[in-house]
Amino acid sequence: MHINIRKAIKEDCTRMMELVNELAVYEKAPEQVTVDFNHFIESGFGPNPVWWAYVAEADGAVQGFALCYTRYSTWKGQRIFLEDLLVTEKYRGNGLGKLLVDKVIEDGKGKQFTGITWQVLDWNEPAINFYKKYEGVVFDEEWVNCNINF
Amino acid sequence: MHINIRKAIKEDCTRMMELVNELAVYEKAPEQVTVDFNHFIESGFGPNPVWWAYVAEADGAVQGFALCYTRYSTWKGQRIFLEDLLVTEKYRGNGLGKLLVDKVIEDGKGKQFTGITWQVLDWNEPAINFYKKYEGVVFDEEWVNCNINF
Repeated sequence: MHINIRKAIKEDCTRMMELVNELAVYEKAPEQVTVDFNHFIESGFGPNPVWWAYVAEADGAVQGFALCYTRYSTWKGQRIFLEDLLVTEKYRGNGLGKLLVDKVIEDGKGKQFTGITWQVLDWNEPAINFYKKYEGVVFDEEWVNCNINF
Repeated sequence: MHINIRKAIKEDCTRMMELVNELAVYEKAPEQVTVDFNHFIESGFGPNPVWWAYVAEADGAVQGFALCYTRYSTWKGQRIFLEDLLVTEKYRGNGLGKLLVDKVIEDGKGKQFTGITWQVLDWNEPAINFYKKYEGVVFDEEWVNCNINF
């Protein structure tokens, strides 16, 4: 299988949002996806972009992506926050996820970032096992996420 | 006690970093603070600011601050990430923390954010009890933080 990893462009947004909805079903929370599509595009490609992403193409279409934003840690400085990593079900197990994460890290190392941070659900064993393969990765279960919706 | 909450300016950075180091001691990890001071300033007040903050003044000096950045969630859109909330030990219990969080939320509600997200250490009971007072707050212990340092 030929896999091509490239920076996401504006025209990828429709397919990316399809994949987001698919992942939400896998994570048992499809009703939680309330993002506004135009605001999603503007947040990635408007005058003040917040996120950037890479897509994985196989068989002539986007089958997965990794989406990031800049986290600021007062302990560590600027870090990549890997918000989403997802590959459509049919294409899992072909190395797309690894190529995407490798690309995020490779590009981040040449910039102002001191590292990369992400989160994984504690019941998602396939994902945890996938991340364990990365050298130097540290898992920290001490933190509780808190949210208020406006 | 007269408390004044205002947007942080560049000149507050030295005092803010003092408070960061104090908090690191409280969180039992002072050696973990490796942030570069000039990069801290640039990340807040350079051409492409990543973070913004509010400071709490009492007795003529900054005694606490709240520091935020923009998180992008593919489920919820742009959200405030409250990265740090801290008040120097001597001034705790005087309402500075609540005034800071209230200000972050109040200002965020008028903008493009769909909500606010933060994390709390699961052993930090005073902080958890403080956050429980906020209407609509949801705590989620299912997520594990993952980190790789570059």
